[in-house]
Amino acid sequence: MRPKIVITMGDAAGIGPEIIFKSLNSKRIYNRCKPVVLGDYKVMKKTLDFVGIDLNLNKVDKLKDCKFSFGTVDIIDLDNINSPELNFGINNPVYGKAAVEYTIEAIKMCMDNYVDAIVSAPLNKKSMHMAGFNFEGQTEILAKYTKTEYYAMILILENIKLMMLSNHISLRNAVEYVKEGKIYNLIILAHNTLKNLGITNPVIAVAGLNPHASEDGLFGSEETIEIAPAIEKAKKEKINVLGPVPPDSIFLKAKEGEYDLVIALYHDQGNIPLKTLGFGKIVTFIAGIPIIRTSVGHGTAFDIAGKNLADETNIVEAIIVASELAISKNKSKN
Amino acid sequence: MRPKIVITMGDAAGIGPEIIFKSLNSKRIYNRCKPVVLGDYKVMKKTLDFVGIDLNLNKVDKLKDCKFSFGTVDIIDLDNINSPELNFGINNPVYGKAAVEYTIEAIKMCMDNYVDAIVSAPLNKKSMHMAGFNFEGQTEILAKYTKTEYYAMILILENIKLMMLSNHISLRNAVEYVKEGKIYNLIILAHNTLKNLGITNPVIAVAGLNPHASEDGLFGSEETIEIAPAIEKAKKEKINVLGPVPPDSIFLKAKEGEYDLVIALYHDQGNIPLKTLGFGKIVTFIAGIPIIRTSVGHGTAFDIAGKNLADETNIVEAIIVASELAISKNKSKN
Repeated sequence: MRPKIVITMGDAAGIGPEIIFKSLNSKRIYNRCKPVVLGDYKVMKKTLDFVGIDLNLNKVDKLKDCKFSFGTVDIIDLDNINSPELNFGINNPVYGKAAVEYTIEAIKMCMDNYVDAIVSAPLNKKSMHMAGFNFEGQTEILAKYTKTEYYAMILILENIKLMMLSNHISLRNAVEYVKEGKIYNLIILAHNTLKNLGITNPVIAVAGLNPHASEDGLFGSEETIEIAPAIEKAKKEKINVLGPVPPDSIFLKAKEGEYDLVIALYHDQGNIPLKTLGFGKIVTFIAGIPIIRTSVGHGTAFDIAGKNLADETNIVEAIIVASELAISKNKSKN
Repeated sequence: MRPKIVITMGDAAGIGPEIIFKSLNSKRIYNRCKPVVLGDYKVMKKTLDFVGIDLNLNKVDKLKDCKFSFGTVDIIDLDNINSPELNFGINNPVYGKAAVEYTIEAIKMCMDNYVDAIVSAPLNKKSMHMAGFNFEGQTEILAKYTKTEYYAMILILENIKLMMLSNHISLRNAVEYVKEGKIYNLIILAHNTLKNLGITNPVIAVAGLNPHASEDGLFGSEETIEIAPAIEKAKKEKINVLGPVPPDSIFLKAKEGEYDLVIALYHDQGNIPLKTLGFGKIVTFIAGIPIIRTSVGHGTAFDIAGKNLADETNIVEAIIVASELAISKNKSKN
């Protein structure tokens, strides 16, 4: 069964609408899933005109009216952008508000089981803030409207799934952030997320913090004092977790499919290898929320918006990954 | 002109002699360079017997007697291992002493311009220490016998050259090690090394320490206080250096050939992406010494020595890289 995927349009002034059309101009996508766009019909129509791809638009009110068929893009129209013309690359609170509404509506559709997953085109944070929404980004909208308190980002690149213990903090502070309790909680979140996605007995690998994972304390003590105890505690809960793995070999093994998920201990420990391996193909996923949602790794790219220059590779990956995760989750339930 | 490359045999009990034969069983190597092995003839003969490759051995006293021709392996025999049989995988001070002697003799040959570069098969540190030599590794032998005080390792993987500000110290200490003076000195060493290798106006990129190179001090101050000043100081010396580059994009650009050399600020910032990209193909080179010398990234692998199981990929890369560097250096002199 092809899963139903709702794709939110994101900010109208960005590259979102353009890359949505480019991604849906592919039989491969329709072979894998039933995509429907949630956005503003008029914006999508204007975008299709300048993108110049030969696709039909099917404006629907209800999911049952969707064709889910290659050649026709089904669009649920929230009709919330009433500006006569479409201004690309400019912050506009109307677009900012509209983008938040697509996300909220998509969450409802997913929570009510009308669709199997959400794929988000980028929204513009500044435009959202201009519209009076104080969310940090889409993640926080998702957390709020699914009533989730503890969640974490997973970066996905082909068969690598990656969580990071900390993110946008200094390396000095990231070292201090390496604490047994925090690592343990993240292992549990990773385990539950993977189980929920239909992976039985998932293998989780935790990286060390220091070179060669400190070679038994030769350079650094965090492996002994914080990381190993967190892993041992999780093992007692029958969780299949290993480590601390030397940081400079963990991604090599992850690439070869040895782990279902890697926990990196700081931003660059995870982002350096992932971006070096697959820049532009990394998909984000949120662990902890009760729905499947993937997103592109890039932003609205105002500098190239409206110029038919945007590359759809990343959103194609996001749709494929969302489809795979939804299929895996649905299988495990039956 | 094919450069002359002397390959030191390393420890007789390790995989060195075996991978040397496997690497020299290749027309490609002889097309690129004139290799000669420096070691013990009897050990090499016994090794060839169990490796079972159809190659002739040509024992020579002087370089002018070498054939440098595919099918015949030229060997300068130091005749310094007199044990009747060859014991693989066992620490032996005779082998340890012999390996040091190959390295010292190779340095002399290179310093006297008889050969253009050295490629080292691995030596066993424990065997060397048992023989009474207190060097940390081959690097320290090279430094001593070339009278070099300030030197640094360069890791080479295809078109990426990488230096690291610090190596086997804890991440906590590595953060403290990020100081303007240390970074500046390394930039100068990198610049002089690349110039000496025939690269005109080399481009050197220095990574930031913090995520996104701190986004103008948003998370971390080292970019502003230590890294940028070191770069500015080097620029005043007309050195083509840029940065601090966001750590999670620098290797992507390096891979695409944007830089002649990358300076990473700690062990894993450099080793994670390099090993993820090309484990088993990374060649080491020493910057600061007056000769060209490359080495494999692996050790003597006592566990598989004598079993004809060793893979020669890494030493092949080391020979190719040494040849390319020697050709580039020689061209720049003419």
